Order: sequence, then structure tokens, then C-alpha cells
Amino acid sequence: MTVVSPADVGRVACVGAGVIGGGWVAHFLARGLDVVAYDPAPDAADRLARLVDAAWPALERLGLADGASPDRLTVAPTLSDAVADAEFVQESAPERLDLKLDLLAEIDAATPAGVVVGSSTSGYSMTEMAARCATPERLVVGHPFNPPYLIPLVEVVGGKRTDAEAVAWASEFYRAVGKFVITMDHEVPGFIANRLQEALWREALHMVAAGEATVQQIDDAMTQGPGLRWAFMGPCLTFHLAGGEGGMAHMLDHFGPSLQAPWTRLAAPELTTELRDRMVAGCEDEAGERSIADLVAERDRGVLAVLDAVGYGRRA
Amino acid sequence: MTVVSPADVGRVACVGAGVIGGGWVAHFLARGLDVVAYDPAPDAADRLARLVDAAWPALERLGLADGASPDRLTVAPTLSDAVADAEFVQESAPERLDLKLDLLAEIDAATPAGVVVGSSTSGYSMTEMAARCATPERLVVGHPFNPPYLIPLVEVVGGKRTDAEAVAWASEFYRAVGKFVITMDHEVPGFIANRLQEALWREALHMVAAGEATVQQIDDAMTQGPGLRWAFMGPCLTFHLAGGEGGMAHMLDHFGPSLQAPWTRLAAPELTTELRDRMVAGCEDEAGERSIADLVAERDRGVLAVLDAVGYGRRA
Repeated sequence: MTVVSPADVGRVACVGAGVIGGGWVAHFLARGLDVVAYDPAPDAADRLARLVDAAWPALERLGLADGASPDRLTVAPTLSDAVADAEFVQESAPERLDLKLDLLAEIDAATPAGVVVGSSTSGYSMTEMAARCATPERLVVGHPFNPPYLIPLVEVVGGKRTDAEAVAWASEFYRAVGKFVITMDHEVPGFIANRLQEALWREALHMVAAGEATVQQIDDAMTQGPGLRWAFMGPCLTFHLAGGEGGMAHMLDHFGPSLQAPWTRLAAPELTTELRDRMVAGCEDEAGERSIADLVAERDRGVLAVLDAVGYGRRA
Repeated sequence: MTVVSPADVGRVACVGAGVIGGGWVAHFLARGLDVVAYDPAPDAADRLARLVDAAWPALERLGLADGASPDRLTVAPTLSDAVADAEFVQESAPERLDLKLDLLAEIDAATPAGVVVGSSTSGYSMTEMAARCATPERLVVGHPFNPPYLIPLVEVVGGKRTDAEAVAWASEFYRAVGKFVITMDHEVPGFIANRLQEALWREALHMVAAGEATVQQIDDAMTQGPGLRWAFMGPCLTFHLAGGEGGMAHMLDHFGPSLQAPWTRLAAPELTTELRDRMVAGCEDEAGERSIADLVAERDRGVLAVLDAVGYGRRA
């Protein structure tokens, strides 16, 4: 159904020029694409120019694609002009469902048939957002992280009326422009990364509201603690190592009771045999050929590298 | 009440030689201290030797203190021998309250008067754990993160019967041996970092139990997404930047409604004016003289540095 193959896209439209939309613009420009942007704000062009300028040194250091240039950005006067010749459209409007409903319908009406449209929504499902679209089969969620020009993750998931082909096309396109893609089989509110982040964030808000911790203590606890590991090893594999040679199985058997402890306001699921086995098997799959000792060595190299990398911001 | 000033400690006892206790042993040895370890397991000495061996290359790269050597580790035959001449005791026994209650009472009885005893507990309060101790005033929680020889964070908090002087002494001692210390005013189950980590972990377990995400997807979502920022900028300051020039105030006004969204199973606190203002003021205090533009540049440098640092483990 799509016009261009994902790796051959040369021209994209970005609708919305805030922090996320502008970040996408910078990323696509750095990957050597032509970008046409649209935003109803009168100062959109200036704001975009500032955003791209601010991002460019980092993008240069990461390595630009051949021919990449901030000059390949055009700011279109209307939405229709922006999407008229686009081979892909990224929507990054403010996070309000009423707004997304109308805007996506407008984008859908103006975008050439078969061109895939991705939405940066932080948590709405495409099933909800595409309700007013005439051709919802080409609309997908393509959820980035801030700043989109540096953080690799994009979560891709379709709505009930999205073609599987559009989900596959979008996943391949984002990979072709250098993103790390998680393609989800089901719509889950907040997707995966935002659910994890939001649980932690809500616990942080509760702690500040209750006077249990300050903003500074919460940020310090993260950057001097678990955050140093999570830059390169996720929470599951990290806990796989907390069990020593026994891995996740020993960890769940040893620390399982702490799931009943009041260590967060979020009640834990019951640690059924099925969940235990799923966590253990998942960690073993992810570890692959790597033994616990290999992973410990990898973690230590990772923490050392990250400590070196962030040393400029480290306090005594 | 204490015998030695925190910076002059030359000899510590480590009770418990598992992953955490062994990690403390490696850390104290690398900081040039004499360490006497005790663990009831028959293979404790071998296990400790392997742990210290595995950690030593990383510790060498971080930089050893003058005179630091794995040879300065002694494994004592009894608990009393281990603590008899200690200037500080770190307890890292398995995470079971019944066990901690007896063990801390035993340690307290055998340790010279005035010597501070720290517990690595992941979440019990010292008020609970010290219930059977004769001199609870010198017992504090000193909660590290795995691996204790690399992750800087130690959370220090006393129990109801702990002297404020012991809390201050322990905080100063941990800093003197190179840790980053958060001294908490109140006992909160799980302290700060574990509460944040546990909320995220429980959401992850729920997602795996419900078939919403796999172990691999959860770990990828972290390492390719928020984990890259949290290595050097905590969740509060990160969200301070998500609001653009308007900072945390704009972020809460814009994304505040998403606190009601079903993005995690943890219900959010009510976003009262007081909580909003506390978050905004906290971010402004933490930012200090740094403008939003300064912080954006700092974040970008940080993400770039971390991306470089962890590049060896990165997939295409």
C-alpha cells in the first residue's frame, strides 16, 4: 500500500514544532532527509531554527548522513502544503485527545494515499486517535523519547484499524533512520517505556507530596544509583545479577517476599509459578550465551564506562 | 561516642559474604582499608576471593587508594573475631527480618562500644531491626546498590533509638571512602532509590504477567530510552526539560492530566497547588544557576557521552 520503500524515503513532513516535533525535525535533517514542517504558532519557524541550531553540534558529533543540512528544512504555510509531497508524516502536536482526533483526520485527508503517518503521542492509542480518519489503515503510533534526535527508542504500535503492513513499514523506516524500534503487538496505554517511567514518576510525586524525599534526593538517588546501570542494562537483567550465580530464579525466590513489602505504593502482582518462570526464561533468553560471570563483567565495564562518561557532572 | 574519626578508619568488619557483602569487601579493600570478613557458609573464604578477584580489574581502573591490596582481607572464624578490633562494621546478611534481628543483636554485643554498625538492608527500618540490640544508638542503615564497589549511592538513615551523631558519623565515613551519601531524616520503607526502582519493577512484573511486554522489551525500553538520561540526570530534572522553556511548571500544567491516565497501575497523588509548587521549586533549586538552555546542552552532552560509553553493547 505504500509508495516508497522505507529505506528510500527522502522527504518527510513534521506536524507540530514543539520540543518533540522540533527534535524529530533535527533528527530527520541529520539523517540527510528533506523536511517540511508545519505548526500553527506564528513563531514556529524561528523556534524550529533555534531548536535545530541547538541540536546540530550534538548531531555532528554523532555523525551526519551524506548531504545532511539544516538548510533542507522548509516551513510550510499550511498543513496541506506540508504533507502534499511527503513520503512519511510525523505528528507531534500537544497531548490532547480532542486536538489529536481532528488533527489526524486533517492530516489523513491531506496526505497522499498509502503514505504512512506516525504519531508521537505519549500514551493515547491509535484506535482512539484515528476515530475520525477516513483511511486509518496507514496511521501508527511512533512514540519517541526526548530528545528524539539523541535517544534511540521509538515504540511502534497500530490501532485496531491499522494495517499490519503499515506497522511493519513504519518500524522499518524508523530503523532505516537510525532509531531503535520496539514493535508492540497490542495497544497498551502508555506503551512500555512510559509505563515504567510513569510508575517511578508517580512514586516520586507521592514521596515529595508526603515529605518523604526532596526533588534533589530523588534525582540524586537515580543518578548515583540505579540510573548508572539502566543506561546499558535493563531492570530485568540487572536483577538477574542480583541473584548471584542463581540468577533471576534465585533473586525471585530470595527477594520475592519483598514484593509484599510496602516499598512503593504500587501493589505487586502475585508471584505465581507462571510469572516466576516467565521472568526466569525471559532473562535466560536475553542473556543468551552470556554466563552470569560474563554479565557481571559486562555490567562492571558498563558502569565504569558510564562513570567515566558522566564524570564531568559528578560531585565529590 | 565513637572511637575513631570517620576519615581515620583503617579497619572494618564485613559480616555476610554474598553479592552485597562481598562487594563491600572489594570496595573497602580498594580504598586501602584492612577488612575482616565473617560469613557462616563453609565456602565463604573461596567465594570472597573469587568476588574480590572479579572486581579488582574494575577497581584498578577506577584508581586504588595507596596501599590497597586484596591481601589485606582476613576471613575470621567467628563473628566475635571479625568485629573485635573493627572501627566500623557493615552487615550484609540475607534479607530476612528474623535473621537481622538476631544477627544485629549479636554484632552489637560483640562490637567495641561506640563503634558504628551499618546495615545493607534493602528496605527494613533500623527501628525494626535493632529491637533486640543493647546499644541501638550506634546502629544505622547504610544501604548500597549493586555492585557496591562501583555504584556510588549509599542511603543512610537511623532508627528511632539511633543517635543523630551515629548517623552523621556513618554519612561522613561513607563519604570518606568515596561513596555518594543521601542522609534521610525519616525512616521510609525501601528508602528512596529502592522505592523508585520497586515501583518500576512492579509495573514491569505486571506487564509480563499480563502479556503486555516481554522481559526483552522491558529491558530494551529502558536501555534505549529513559535509562540513557537517568545515568546523569534524574527524573525530575529530566521532566523539567520536557516542558521546554517553561520548565517543570509548564510540564505539570501540560502533562498534569496524564497523571489521571491509565499509564501505570500506580494511582498518582492529587496534583495540588502545593505539590506543583514543591516540584517547581525543587527543580529550580536543583538547576541553580543553570538555565533551561544550559541544562538542555548538558543533557545532550551527557546522552552523547553515555551513548559513546555504552556503544560496545549497542545493537544496530
